[in-house]
Amino acid sequence: MGIIVQKFGGTSVADAQKIHNAANAVIREKENGNDVIVVVSAMGHTTDHLIKLAKEITPNPDSRELDMLLSTGEQVSIALLAMAVQSGGYKAISLTGQQVGIITENIHSKARIVNIKTEKLKQFLNQGNIIIVAGFQGITEDGEITTLGRGGSDTSAVAIAAALNAERCDIYTDVEGVYATDPRIVPNIQKTDVISYEEMLELARVGANVLHPRSVETAKQFNVPLRVRSSFKLDNMGTLIIGVDNMEIYKPVAGVASDSSQVRILLSNLPDIPGTAAKLFGALAQNNISVDMIIQSLARNGENSIAFTVAEEDLNATLETIKNQKDIILTGEILTDNDIAKVSIVGAGMVDRPGIAASMFRALSEKNINIKMISTSEIKISCLVEKNNAKDAIKALCKEFGLESSEEAVVKGDLPDV
Amino acid sequence: MGIIVQKFGGTSVADAQKIHNAANAVIREKENGNDVIVVVSAMGHTTDHLIKLAKEITPNPDSRELDMLLSTGEQVSIALLAMAVQSGGYKAISLTGQQVGIITENIHSKARIVNIKTEKLKQFLNQGNIIIVAGFQGITEDGEITTLGRGGSDTSAVAIAAALNAERCDIYTDVEGVYATDPRIVPNIQKTDVISYEEMLELARVGANVLHPRSVETAKQFNVPLRVRSSFKLDNMGTLIIGVDNMEIYKPVAGVASDSSQVRILLSNLPDIPGTAAKLFGALAQNNISVDMIIQSLARNGENSIAFTVAEEDLNATLETIKNQKDIILTGEILTDNDIAKVSIVGAGMVDRPGIAASMFRALSEKNINIKMISTSEIKISCLVEKNNAKDAIKALCKEFGLESSEEAVVKGDLPDV
Repeated sequence: MGIIVQKFGGTSVADAQKIHNAANAVIREKENGNDVIVVVSAMGHTTDHLIKLAKEITPNPDSRELDMLLSTGEQVSIALLAMAVQSGGYKAISLTGQQVGIITENIHSKARIVNIKTEKLKQFLNQGNIIIVAGFQGITEDGEITTLGRGGSDTSAVAIAAALNAERCDIYTDVEGVYATDPRIVPNIQKTDVISYEEMLELARVGANVLHPRSVETAKQFNVPLRVRSSFKLDNMGTLIIGVDNMEIYKPVAGVASDSSQVRILLSNLPDIPGTAAKLFGALAQNNISVDMIIQSLARNGENSIAFTVAEEDLNATLETIKNQKDIILTGEILTDNDIAKVSIVGAGMVDRPGIAASMFRALSEKNINIKMISTSEIKISCLVEKNNAKDAIKALCKEFGLESSEEAVVKGDLPDV
Repeated sequence: MGIIVQKFGGTSVADAQKIHNAANAVIREKENGNDVIVVVSAMGHTTDHLIKLAKEITPNPDSRELDMLLSTGEQVSIALLAMAVQSGGYKAISLTGQQVGIITENIHSKARIVNIKTEKLKQFLNQGNIIIVAGFQGITEDGEITTLGRGGSDTSAVAIAAALNAERCDIYTDVEGVYATDPRIVPNIQKTDVISYEEMLELARVGANVLHPRSVETAKQFNVPLRVRSSFKLDNMGTLIIGVDNMEIYKPVAGVASDSSQVRILLSNLPDIPGTAAKLFGALAQNNISVDMIIQSLARNGENSIAFTVAEEDLNATLETIKNQKDIILTGEILTDNDIAKVSIVGAGMVDRPGIAASMFRALSEKNINIKMISTSEIKISCLVEKNNAKDAIKALCKEFGLESSEEAVVKGDLPDV
């Protein structure tokens, strides 16, 4: 048998009972005959609590010292989980990021992993140990403690799986897997059994927050099979995330997602001078404003209009940037519209099957939902609709593409993980 | 100017306010023109809390994993204190035991320091940093995290001071210094301005718990001047602890201490066979029972009696050990007496001045306090008295040897430090 990497998030190790529960999942995998490496996040709200402590000292704590502080959270979890596995009668050893040798860039609070040393991991596995590794943390070549930022623990787990050529990386969480849409909107939504990295990335970007895109990107890059599964229902195999090449069958539409946090900006009657769009979006990029959907249309009198969407929190900065671009001649109006929701269907199967877009538009029109803007990529079609139509749009699309199930999904509070 | 090592215990960094307070003491020393290295314990009750967490997982946590867990406590403190010093406008950097290179034996929960690497400390000092080091922790040559056990943080501080040939090691605590006896018994007791390592060790062993003997031993070994002082009254210079060779004047009696936690055991009518005492105390030592006072007396009929004291908690093990020694012929009785308190006077000045013992016995007899047993060392005279006479004995001795002051001592709750 091979190496299985397991990752437990903060909610899965929030108290002694849950830590024993996680230990059971670890021991079960060991009893399957696998070598097991476990990556753990900080318990429950530990990270928030530590940040609060720091803010009591100073409103702007130094990022190096904040990393020194926050990295203790995972160190507590690994020691406790190792104790729990040992109390179950198995050899276990905990290792910090420094002890493993999870080498990162010399950047604090959001370092990227550059290398994972495997000697110590292999040595301890060979001695029959279950290894418990602190997620979210690493160390620079100079011995400085770093943290990996959002999605860090998932990324630690995937990177370790990649470094050791592990058979699989199992992400244990408090949901039963990946659903085709938010079960709070469509209670009888199907759990997805298999999904591709690409689909998962598109779903993650449009709001399905089971996995941080960063960990999925890393898994895709190194072709590490990922499984999202429940810490509390060990018999449930959750959702397997693999390369599209390895999928034998897939549905044309794997999931439906929505995002209501954007605002649309319309610049009307721009003079049709070459380079206007380049100047505009170049200036926005320079100010770190991410633009999502963009549509440019030529009006009858030779003038353009450009519509695009940005995150609501970037609206003011966006308007400021546009007005400061002296070399863009604004002859028309700047209209903003925040009564929008982006509803997207995602599926690797779209490529081969024509008519998916048409089915989407028809399903929406049958519910009298007006489409304000459309954008498409190879595996995604997104429509902007009015905010109060978003839920109906999701329901209609789940029905249209056969994503409903006969059972209701079981959803617990999903705390976002560091 | 030279290097000053400062150590702050758990009560001195128990919350944000106290951490800022400690930062002020740090900055003050830096502004005096010194290079400053600070050693910090875990905040307040952190260590107890972490032990409780571990016990929730398993009643007997593995000592390696317990060290992994407990070492996080100091890591939190150093990050927060570094932030506080930085917010005061000074360059500061925190370092774990591992980052400094505090190399210990490969023993968990009570490792001894074998070496302290000074390269990194010197490098960061040369860059103008105030360095904040995690106390109580070290690392083995193999990279295993260890803790130093009781008195650990004080010992870290003294060992760093020794390694860097520091000018002084200041132990900040919540008392104003070392008192000649417990101020709860003699409220107008003198604070001691200067005391020798040897006197401090004797006082520590007989119950004055300001400093753990281990840190005083280390300071004595490397001749590091120690200062015990208050975190809350920075103008108060506390008590300086130095080698007796460096002291210009000292009182014949530096302090009075008492210990009520012992029990006396009397073996009467032992046959006068050579080697009986050796067998008896050898067997006790083998069972890890520390014997304190020992008196052997020859009775008129050629039979011995041996009296000795042990800690109350060792009484059962002691009686068990004696009864199991088949080669010791017990012809008389085994009597135990737990109505005893050991009252000791300690002073390096005793050596030169005759009559100190006589003064002690007279002072006790004037108060009608009966002496049950006497033992003496070069700088200490101890008398066993009845428990309910202990306080009166202390008061009488403080008066006899001029240890009272015109002011009352200020005492706060002194939490024992790890």
